[in-house]
Amino acid sequence: MDVPQSPDRFSLVELQNAFRNRGMPLEALRSDITPTGLHYLLVHFDIPEVDADSWRLRIDGHVDTPLSLSLADLLARPSRSVPVTLECAGNGRGRMAPRAESQPWLLEAIGTADWTGTPLRGVLAEAGLRDGAVEWVFTGADHGMQGGVEQDYQRALTLAEADGEDVLLAYAMNGRPLEPQHGAPVRLLVPGWYGMTSVKWLTRIEAVTEPFGGYQQAEAYRYQSDPEDPGEPVTRIRVRALMVPPGFPDFPDRQRYVDAGPVTIRGRAWSGQAPVVRVEVGVDGQWCEARLEAAPGRYAWRAWSGEVDLAPGPHVLACRATDAAGNTQPEEVWNVQGMGNNAVQQVPVLARSGVR
Amino acid sequence: MDVPQSPDRFSLVELQNAFRNRGMPLEALRSDITPTGLHYLLVHFDIPEVDADSWRLRIDGHVDTPLSLSLADLLARPSRSVPVTLECAGNGRGRMAPRAESQPWLLEAIGTADWTGTPLRGVLAEAGLRDGAVEWVFTGADHGMQGGVEQDYQRALTLAEADGEDVLLAYAMNGRPLEPQHGAPVRLLVPGWYGMTSVKWLTRIEAVTEPFGGYQQAEAYRYQSDPEDPGEPVTRIRVRALMVPPGFPDFPDRQRYVDAGPVTIRGRAWSGQAPVVRVEVGVDGQWCEARLEAAPGRYAWRAWSGEVDLAPGPHVLACRATDAAGNTQPEEVWNVQGMGNNAVQQVPVLARSGVR
Repeated sequence: MDVPQSPDRFSLVELQNAFRNRGMPLEALRSDITPTGLHYLLVHFDIPEVDADSWRLRIDGHVDTPLSLSLADLLARPSRSVPVTLECAGNGRGRMAPRAESQPWLLEAIGTADWTGTPLRGVLAEAGLRDGAVEWVFTGADHGMQGGVEQDYQRALTLAEADGEDVLLAYAMNGRPLEPQHGAPVRLLVPGWYGMTSVKWLTRIEAVTEPFGGYQQAEAYRYQSDPEDPGEPVTRIRVRALMVPPGFPDFPDRQRYVDAGPVTIRGRAWSGQAPVVRVEVGVDGQWCEARLEAAPGRYAWRAWSGEVDLAPGPHVLACRATDAAGNTQPEEVWNVQGMGNNAVQQVPVLARSGVR
Repeated sequence: MDVPQSPDRFSLVELQNAFRNRGMPLEALRSDITPTGLHYLLVHFDIPEVDADSWRLRIDGHVDTPLSLSLADLLARPSRSVPVTLECAGNGRGRMAPRAESQPWLLEAIGTADWTGTPLRGVLAEAGLRDGAVEWVFTGADHGMQGGVEQDYQRALTLAEADGEDVLLAYAMNGRPLEPQHGAPVRLLVPGWYGMTSVKWLTRIEAVTEPFGGYQQAEAYRYQSDPEDPGEPVTRIRVRALMVPPGFPDFPDRQRYVDAGPVTIRGRAWSGQAPVVRVEVGVDGQWCEARLEAAPGRYAWRAWSGEVDLAPGPHVLACRATDAAGNTQPEEVWNVQGMGNNAVQQVPVLARSGVR
């Protein structure tokens, strides 16, 4: 694999993935709920063609009662709607060098939707786990080759993780049936975890008696310090704040212009590990406290704002969040696969006097 | 401006734009209508914040009766729904070298939505043109800097072009109010033309007595053979066919695998200049005719399919379309701004025997 070394040169493979796997323009940080067409998207293989009418979800393996459920079966079960912030585990990979040639996200692999579905735990309880099962393996309909392994996309959860009250078999996003790219007709939705866990185009849930060793669990999604390091698994979303782009941009460079004087910086912050309890706003390395608003839900980002005063000239704005578990965003992150890069966002701006 | 010279190395500026300006994964060529969240998107500056309740559209300049219309006013007028294929004029720029550093589209800046609005001509007739007016200038709310010029995004149409029966003031896409990124609450929609003409977040329509010389008309969107060439204006969409990606892909390289033997290649073709009358499917430089299906509308792409027989091993698949005006896709396109690159699509695949 070609490993590009530079933070300002990207390969055709990286660009192709950037066009397929769509980012959220950061203007969408203005609102609690991200419009469906602005939510980030990561699809390893192709968006599969799934016919909702003939679709079935099998629940089998080490269970008492194997099930085969239709969409109508799931719609008839208890439903629950939860606003959830999802983020790709590779968000920030494109800022690293050297980096694995993959999806070169800069900062935009995020979004918060209102997801509706039926709680997974109810369906699993109906199948009934037999003694000796240790994990549930979730299989999607997306098929392809990765790391030399031909595969349907698969990820596993431990029994305890799958039992969360807000883990959903989701069939609606922002009040409408899932669009094809978001996993239609039904996907898994695991709040608090990076997006790879929320398997799309779900076809099967299997109870297994040994920990799952599939490619997307054992090889991919690991924090590795070097290629020989087996690494730690990527799990819950690390704390992060991002700001609504202030002022207005240049095209195509996206240099930003703001009026000199008092400027309100606003944005949103989230963590899958504990509630966000603090956001700071930085100007040229000087930090001050931002005001926090209530989050629209336990697993959704939290709005914040802070005032800064900008003299005419160039400045670097920044923001950083801290969660209740004491996690604060670092200045820099690097690992082999480019996972979980929640480094502090830096936004260069040019402040101008009396121009507009 | 940095001018990257290589077709397989891209700058950070190009990547940033690729993440903001979302492409349509080519799997969406399976359906006549593109789901809203899969349609391509090009925003020069930021997505503006427009309050639909207080929004007004001014129609003024060289008219008899200046108007100021609310969204409710437009919704009360006659409505019309039209399926329209939109394409960005810069689609294919990323395949060129050297190229202007801008939005480096490969092939994915397309989409077909069902657009609903009120015909523009009715609103313009109500304002009443005064003698001597030559063009209508359309202004959007998106604000930024381009080519050293601070601007609201603006484009013009001649009186005849603006009078087309299917030119709409569009307020709905695929049966729902416009999402913010597609121009909410109201955008211009000019079927047959490249997307830059369909001004989003419309705020003003002005009748002018001299041809409009604004940046997006006189500087940008020109077919220039060299930087000193004033060039020809970019107008209607050039003929093009694209195929649904056959087989399944590798991640992240997107090398494609297909079963050896008979394979059906399918896709869609369109032209803003005349109806598509012919599509050919190519294998390793040998061409055969594809079957054409009816288009869902006069301005929408047309489905096609063709059978090929693949021996085991590597092949290059291709497709090319011809329209009723005799335009056929060329092998190569180059111009300074990277406009209108409708070169024939080439898709390398590896055919395998009895693997799946």
